[in-house]
Formats: sequence, C-alpha cells, structure tokens
Amino acid sequence: MIMEPDNLFDSIPGNLDEERTDRLVQSEKVKIERIISKGHTSPASGWYDQEQDEWVVVLKGEAIISFENGREMNLTAGSYINIPAHTKHKVKWTHPKTETVWLAIHY
Amino acid sequence: MIMEPDNLFDSIPGNLDEERTDRLVQSEKVKIERIISKGHTSPASGWYDQEQDEWVVVLKGEAIISFENGREMNLTAGSYINIPAHTKHKVKWTHPKTETVWLAIHY
Repeated sequence: MIMEPDNLFDSIPGNLDEERTDRLVQSEKVKIERIISKGHTSPASGWYDQEQDEWVVVLKGEAIISFENGREMNLTAGSYINIPAHTKHKVKWTHPKTETVWLAIHY
Repeated sequence: MIMEPDNLFDSIPGNLDEERTDRLVQSEKVKIERIISKGHTSPASGWYDQEQDEWVVVLKGEAIISFENGREMNLTAGSYINIPAHTKHKVKWTHPKTETVWLAIHY
C-alpha cells in the first residue's frame, strides 16, 4: 500500500499577513517547527534569547539573521546555522516577495 | 561583519560509491545528520529497528521507504515522515541518476 507523505512545501497559506509556524514534532527532547515568513522580521528592538539550542535551515527563500556581536548571516536555500542557547539573535530581514520556509529544531 | 553559513547542498562528493553521512549536530538529546544517497538502498534482507525516534525529510532527489507492515512511501523534495522507535523500515530505492539529500533528526 502506497501512502502519501506530508510535504514541507505544501499547505502554505495564501494569506501571510502574520508569520506562520507549524509544530511538526514535540517531544521531551526536541521540538521541530516549520516557519513561513514573507517579509517578516523580529521586533525592531530586543533580541531572541533562548533557553535551548536551535539548529535552523532555510529551505526556500532568503533571510538575514543578525547577532548581538555584530555578525550577520545571509541565508538562502540550504543554508543552516546552529544557535547555541542564550546566543542573542534576531531575524533582520526576510524576502518580501516570496515565502521563506524555515525548518527549526529546538533541542 | 557578514559571515557565510554552511549549506546542505554544498560539499556533495563527486564519488558516491558509498552513501555519505555527515553529522551536523550531536548532543545528549538529538543527532542531526545529512545523508546523501545515489541509488543506495538498505541491505536486501532485514529491517532498520532503531532505539530512537527519527524524523526525516528528503530535500532533493527521490526515494522509497518501505515498512514491515507493507506500507510504502514515495519521498520527493520536501516529503517528511516521522518514524517512531522500533518501527521497522528500510530504504527500498533511491534515484540512481541524481543525489538524494536527506536530513535526519534522531531524538
């Protein structure tokens, strides 16, 4: 019997007035999320300061992440980074004209 | 300062006589691997029977995973499945002419 798997590029809502997050896995040890941005960024002030490590990859689209120490990273399809807990960072920019699809693993 | 992130589609070896696995994250809680197949499959007999849960996505290429209960899944770019611990499965087929890039999260 052939079963149809789910696909990360399906079910992308037409209306992306707000950033969209879908939780794919939630266990005691790990949380896996798909995030879809379209021009969304972090709030203008402040930093994400997370209790857990996060490994994140951009699967489609384009984004810039900035860090408190002044580093910036341009992320395109396939780009991945590991963000250790309490490494302050923000999403500075995502492409305004096309969806950016992220996969985030919090662990 | 702009830093260049790593990319899942870089560093794909020209010689794929054997399947290639790169460990991207290893912690107490999670292991994240990139796997590159090109016509490789599981051994003809037997099943993978893993102690941990595994969430896996195909990012490029094409593969078929089969399960002991007779189910099969065709995976293409973006297809993902969660394989609970001790769910016996195997990779029945991967595309022989192009690289199949997998991202596997063991947790």
